[in-house]
Amino acid sequence: MKVDLNCDLGEAFGNYSFGGDKDIIPLITSANIACGFHAGDENVMNQTVNLAKENHVSIGAHPGFPDLKGFGRRKMDISPTEVYNLIVYQLGALEGFCKVHQTRINHVKPHGALYNMGAKNKAIAKAIAKAVYDFDSTIVLVGLSNSLLISEAQAIGLKTASEVFADRRYEDNGQLVSRKEPDAVITDSDEALKQVLKMVTENKVISRNGKEIDLETDTICVHGDGKHALEFVEQIRKKLTKEGIDIQSL
Amino acid sequence: MKVDLNCDLGEAFGNYSFGGDKDIIPLITSANIACGFHAGDENVMNQTVNLAKENHVSIGAHPGFPDLKGFGRRKMDISPTEVYNLIVYQLGALEGFCKVHQTRINHVKPHGALYNMGAKNKAIAKAIAKAVYDFDSTIVLVGLSNSLLISEAQAIGLKTASEVFADRRYEDNGQLVSRKEPDAVITDSDEALKQVLKMVTENKVISRNGKEIDLETDTICVHGDGKHALEFVEQIRKKLTKEGIDIQSL
Amino acid sequence: MKVDLNCDLGEAFGNYSFGGDKDIIPLITSANIACGFHAGDENVMNQTVNLAKENHVSIGAHPGFPDLKGFGRRKMDISPTEVYNLIVYQLGALEGFCKVHQTRINHVKPHGALYNMGAKNKAIAKAIAKAVYDFDSTIVLVGLSNSLLISEAQAIGLKTASEVFADRRYEDNGQLVSRKEPDAVITDSDEALKQVLKMVTENKVISRNGKEIDLETDTICVHGDGKHALEFVEQIRKKLTKEGIDIQSL
Amino acid sequence: MKVDLNCDLGEAFGNYSFGGDKDIIPLITSANIACGFHAGDENVMNQTVNLAKENHVSIGAHPGFPDLKGFGRRKMDISPTEVYNLIVYQLGALEGFCKVHQTRINHVKPHGALYNMGAKNKAIAKAIAKAVYDFDSTIVLVGLSNSLLISEAQAIGLKTASEVFADRRYEDNGQLVSRKEPDAVITDSDEALKQVLKMVTENKVISRNGKEIDLETDTICVHGDGKHALEFVEQIRKKLTKEGIDIQSL
Repeated sequence: MKVDLNCDLGEAFGNYSFGGDKDIIPLITSANIACGFHAGDENVMNQTVNLAKENHVSIGAHPGFPDLKGFGRRKMDISPTEVYNLIVYQLGALEGFCKVHQTRINHVKPHGALYNMGAKNKAIAKAIAKAVYDFDSTIVLVGLSNSLLISEAQAIGLKTASEVFADRRYEDNGQLVSRKEPDAVITDSDEALKQVLKMVTENKVISRNGKEIDLETDTICVHGDGKHALEFVEQIRKKLTKEGIDIQSL
Repeated sequence: MKVDLNCDLGEAFGNYSFGGDKDIIPLITSANIACGFHAGDENVMNQTVNLAKENHVSIGAHPGFPDLKGFGRRKMDISPTEVYNLIVYQLGALEGFCKVHQTRINHVKPHGALYNMGAKNKAIAKAIAKAVYDFDSTIVLVGLSNSLLISEAQAIGLKTASEVFADRRYEDNGQLVSRKEPDAVITDSDEALKQVLKMVTENKVISRNGKEIDLETDTICVHGDGKHALEFVEQIRKKLTKEGIDIQSL
Repeated sequence: MKVDLNCDLGEAFGNYSFGGDKDIIPLITSANIACGFHAGDENVMNQTVNLAKENHVSIGAHPGFPDLKGFGRRKMDISPTEVYNLIVYQLGALEGFCKVHQTRINHVKPHGALYNMGAKNKAIAKAIAKAVYDFDSTIVLVGLSNSLLISEAQAIGLKTASEVFADRRYEDNGQLVSRKEPDAVITDSDEALKQVLKMVTENKVISRNGKEIDLETDTICVHGDGKHALEFVEQIRKKLTKEGIDIQSL
Repeated sequence: MKVDLNCDLGEAFGNYSFGGDKDIIPLITSANIACGFHAGDENVMNQTVNLAKENHVSIGAHPGFPDLKGFGRRKMDISPTEVYNLIVYQLGALEGFCKVHQTRINHVKPHGALYNMGAKNKAIAKAIAKAVYDFDSTIVLVGLSNSLLISEAQAIGLKTASEVFADRRYEDNGQLVSRKEPDAVITDSDEALKQVLKMVTENKVISRNGKEIDLETDTICVHGDGKHALEFVEQIRKKLTKEGIDIQSL
């Protein structure tokens, strides 16, 4: 039994630092690297690809909306063709740095509003999947477990990785409880660890209403900003390792 | 005997059109495609790569400074490392579209202030050459004939193409007469055609002071904006063809 | 009886020209000047304020979303606070140029997706109105006739100007027929002129279903791009003048 | 005897935080607020104007080059007209927020490369001064003591404030020792405090070569990023207060 731990990296920009890339990288197996639209720039990307390579962490593209001011978190009424093109552009840009560091893109995980729209909007999901497939059909597409992005990626012939969240509650239909709800986030570490273990070992999760639901679990999303986040990732690693689960990249 | 005709393409952005790409493309052999920093965007790039491929025109990257407002024409005090990274990023982005159209980048020609700085500043020339080489050592680097960009590119082991201008006057040292000088541009078509022919057949040009100087001539820079520019390109083609010179891509 | 003719101006950016500002300006009474977010930049704004002043045309701000690539036409999931701030910023920037040209901002008309969201979303309409009011309570707010932007602006105490479209069809509820519908645009000039006249003289329009509906008519939106558009504006002016209607700014 | 303490504020952008605005603001008398070109955005500006007003700190505009990626620190080959326009735009944008908070712009201090170019290039200095004067002739222009920006501002009729640096060494001609030199920065706090005191009480400084030179001293540039910087500002305040010098805004 195995699972991947992925984290967003390279989200600094120009003079602005962001996150604790160097602290989290020894704890993860896959890095989602920002590509200059919602965050990151060409200088940050070079450093981040280098950092990932040195730490033997798989490299993934983390393309987002062209909205630096909103960090790619604001939904935009963008067409499938525009989505296709912004994915190809950002994948290519990251691959540039992979080439000069003699490594490669292993996976793609859309960022923020693009991730959310890809989960629920079929035309957007299709455009993302087609862009990745046309660019390089061997790349793994990471999306929300049970979402349209996973099904559309599989339909076109891509390998997929279903992503789960350790500290988020789920609806009966397998979707995440909206962050606007008071119980969206699990604040108790033990409860979160228990949820993670069940997801990894059984591919199941207990919804907010107490219903057991199916949930493909290939990769767990973790965060590296701040001491608390880092400690939680260490707890997850410890728990999984203790249960004999391999933590390895996609 | 042969020569290439290159032109900047794909310089539209968002809602803004620019140049007459469809009119000029049948007349040229190499297209320098803007990569989203000084001009162009992901949607324009997809269309332009497609246009070039359909017209059997060689595709080149045309990377520039991150200065859309100044169209990449304003010199910036940018470090060699920053130059290296912005070249890699833009090459990668364009290659993304080449991949989805199953074609490839044949050459690179830096744009505007980056082209001019690369011609005169050794550290910048070196950074450009190294970025291209690390990205793909088979790509041809296009630079001003007799400039540092050409010598640095050759030093690192890249193939180069020396660029000449049909309608610009030259200094005794082989550099272009600055546009600030009144006689920088040759306005008489016949004189320009005569200059082109001498450059292509003899690899020589008569400087503004009447001195004959050496000038490697692999590719001629042409423009496609407006009826006059198009007619001039047609005249160049006719003249060269009549003299038995092959017009073919690098 | 009187009416204003307004047109979007100053939508060039950097090296990109746009529209025929010099051709349309003698025909209109109010100019909506882009403020650098969806279009326009500081150099264009200076020239456009100057052009409007020289032609004795009222100056208005035309603020939009921070989306140059999408020309401010893509809806963004942006908060009322963000809308408030982007209006204040853009109004201030334009007023800078009004100050150096010793003139003033007479009206504000939101652009593109912001205009449309302000017409239908109460919180957005309120944020726009409050930003304008806090900035300068004597400014006239231009919005779609019968829309929430007009009612929210009036509620806060702003003067308003209800905008109508000569060549667009209306729904029974007074909203514009979506551009996605085949009959959204009136292509017959005579029909459009007849509609304009009815709107100005009776404050009424016949909907796509043949129903007569009320429609406040303070200003007519016109376009200046291309020969056909200019001719149509001339026809409107002629028709209105012949009927004794004064064409004057808000 | 009196002096002003100024600090750059509001340099966050979107999701990126920057500096310790809330920690430094009680210690200073003038805030230079970024205006969205090199740093800052409309949301940050609103908060920063509010913060300055609540703390009774004078508000200044801190306009910079349109280069967010380079934080306005890269020299750009920009024309005086472009400089004029980018100053007017940014002053206007900041004044928008001053208006909604019922306060005003007291001073202007150009940022980074624009500050440095304004100190040494007469045409740029003139363009900055003229833009400020045309916008509002009562605004104080802050520039490097003994620089062209000060003399050009005075020539046009603006009030000026000569800025000095506590921890930078000076050349015999009154210019700052370049940061590329090993002794550019004074690292010993006592030496820096001694220099500050001499500048404020005598309008003189001892150059790196031991020569006593004249130096108008109206305002001291301080920084708020990090514990060490804050402590140094507190030391300056204590020292000056002990010597009976009033710390007050321009």
